[in-house]
Amino acid sequence: MDALTQLLERFDAGQPAALARAVSIVENQREGYDVLLSRLHSRIGRARRIGVTGPPGAGKSTLTTQLVTAYRAAGLKVGVVAVDPTSPFTGGALLGDRIRMESVALDPGVYIRSLATRGSLGGLSSATRVVADVLDAFGFDRILLETVGVGQSELDIARVADSTLVVLVPESGDSIQTLKAGLMEIADLFAVNKADRPGADRVRNDIELMLGMRQGLALRDVPAHHGVDLKAINNPGKSARQAAAEEQTEAWVPPVLRTVAAKGEGVTELLDALDRHARYLEVSGELFRRRRERWREQVIEVAEQRLRRRVWGNAGIRGYIEGQLSAIESGATSPFGIADELLRRGADLLREP
Amino acid sequence: MDALTQLLERFDAGQPAALARAVSIVENQREGYDVLLSRLHSRIGRARRIGVTGPPGAGKSTLTTQLVTAYRAAGLKVGVVAVDPTSPFTGGALLGDRIRMESVALDPGVYIRSLATRGSLGGLSSATRVVADVLDAFGFDRILLETVGVGQSELDIARVADSTLVVLVPESGDSIQTLKAGLMEIADLFAVNKADRPGADRVRNDIELMLGMRQGLALRDVPAHHGVDLKAINNPGKSARQAAAEEQTEAWVPPVLRTVAAKGEGVTELLDALDRHARYLEVSGELFRRRRERWREQVIEVAEQRLRRRVWGNAGIRGYIEGQLSAIESGATSPFGIADELLRRGADLLREP
Repeated sequence: MDALTQLLERFDAGQPAALARAVSIVENQREGYDVLLSRLHSRIGRARRIGVTGPPGAGKSTLTTQLVTAYRAAGLKVGVVAVDPTSPFTGGALLGDRIRMESVALDPGVYIRSLATRGSLGGLSSATRVVADVLDAFGFDRILLETVGVGQSELDIARVADSTLVVLVPESGDSIQTLKAGLMEIADLFAVNKADRPGADRVRNDIELMLGMRQGLALRDVPAHHGVDLKAINNPGKSARQAAAEEQTEAWVPPVLRTVAAKGEGVTELLDALDRHARYLEVSGELFRRRRERWREQVIEVAEQRLRRRVWGNAGIRGYIEGQLSAIESGATSPFGIADELLRRGADLLREP
Repeated sequence: MDALTQLLERFDAGQPAALARAVSIVENQREGYDVLLSRLHSRIGRARRIGVTGPPGAGKSTLTTQLVTAYRAAGLKVGVVAVDPTSPFTGGALLGDRIRMESVALDPGVYIRSLATRGSLGGLSSATRVVADVLDAFGFDRILLETVGVGQSELDIARVADSTLVVLVPESGDSIQTLKAGLMEIADLFAVNKADRPGADRVRNDIELMLGMRQGLALRDVPAHHGVDLKAINNPGKSARQAAAEEQTEAWVPPVLRTVAAKGEGVTELLDALDRHARYLEVSGELFRRRRERWREQVIEVAEQRLRRRVWGNAGIRGYIEGQLSAIESGATSPFGIADELLRRGADLLREP
């Protein structure tokens, strides 16, 4: 029996060490990571993946810890992937976040893993996705993907999550107008955390205003909307008829919730909203669409990576480039000319086994 | 005469509008950007490219403005590329930086351009490089590439710059131990800005200590070092013999300078250090090596981009993927299996014109 099969046996037996090992292998793309993921493949797709993002200091980790605690109380197993968009200047802050999460870290039904940015670009969302796949296959019911929203990390998380929660604070009100359009596109739910501070209502109103404008635009493009009252869909106090309408509609208006994570306030409402979004995803076909898009992206990523390895691993190709660098330096030819010639010469490489 | 040739004529005549147009074309990879860069290619390589990075609030823009002013006083033309690692949460801060730079923005010998993160990963360093190429070809003597060090942007900048200046503040002292190794690797010079605040000396000492440890490690690997006193090389008060040794040595110890950019203090010393680094780059062959690495990266990027376009632009390939997605979803096959098959089927694509 080979090492991988042994690992899978221990993985199937639910051994934490086997889980940690499997996560390391796929995160770092070690030898055999693709075989491992292929063997786990048929078991992937049961867990709900929830992305949590927001500016530094918004209380994401505290809120995540509250969600973990609540899911555990409901008997669910929870994996947490904390994605650190590595910055040489902010390395310290996230470490503190991890420490704050220690209250749940010793629970055997909870698994917490930090991922740091790989040197290779684009590696972060890819690594997050495959680590979530492993946690999913291991049997976690909820997978929380948490990241501070710097660089492109919040977009990466949204690509990998089923539901994306954007956490803001009352102080965000000053900059709500500058929140880029991208954020409105990725948010499935908003939490205005630390809502016991001044300004929470204003932030909430501002977000709802922006969402309303966006929704207005979207509706114009969807004439066959059966006249459903969009505002009512997300209203927790809705009637049975309204609830039925929700099940049919294809529109989702991101709710804007108030939370005080440090005191546990608003967490129940947040859990409800997450459940409603999960139901919406299922009924509307959006879950199918999002997951299909993830698979599509993964096929393309894997194919490109293998293609790259084959092309640049070829000694003839590498030698050709090195030989042409002085022509580029002298100005005799440009990188574009060399690249075109490379593609012509590389034609046979794909034929190799 | 085609539009591109017309643009190039106006570009050669030094028309600012033609410069702005050329920058836009390459930044956004518009139709003909590769032809444009190829035509400008032989004129690239005269400018010095200086990267400026550091944590938010370190005073990078103020320091950059001081450098611009000093270079202008010396009769040099200066381009500034401000790279914004777009974050939906911090969009506002960088705008302020740009406004602060307005004191030099109206000088016709200065060109300032902001670049925002493209949606596509890896696009930022690539865009920065080609924009710098255009400024270089236009005749700017110094090109300052400024970015806040979040995500991977400071690594991107270092890849594109000849010299990289890392700007810290006395307050950075608290986290100097957590500065990732990568930062020590990319920094050619350090400036402890706002050095009139408490803690500047400690930060400086801490950085020098870390540099010393790194240098110690490096030296063990380079036994044939002719016994040159590395500490003396970067000492501005060095003797003629020491200066001669500097010209010969291959080692560069990043100087740690004190600046108060808002008052212009330490700027002269910084300019001197940048000149010394430029001389070091030239004499040691490091400039040649760095530029060659940039060309190599660009050839690979361009080739990969064209390859991707050809592969994914192919209807047969796209159709094959779409057809296999349900097999992935059902668990019958994994993305890895599909990717392998794709490469087999894609073999003929490279043969196409």
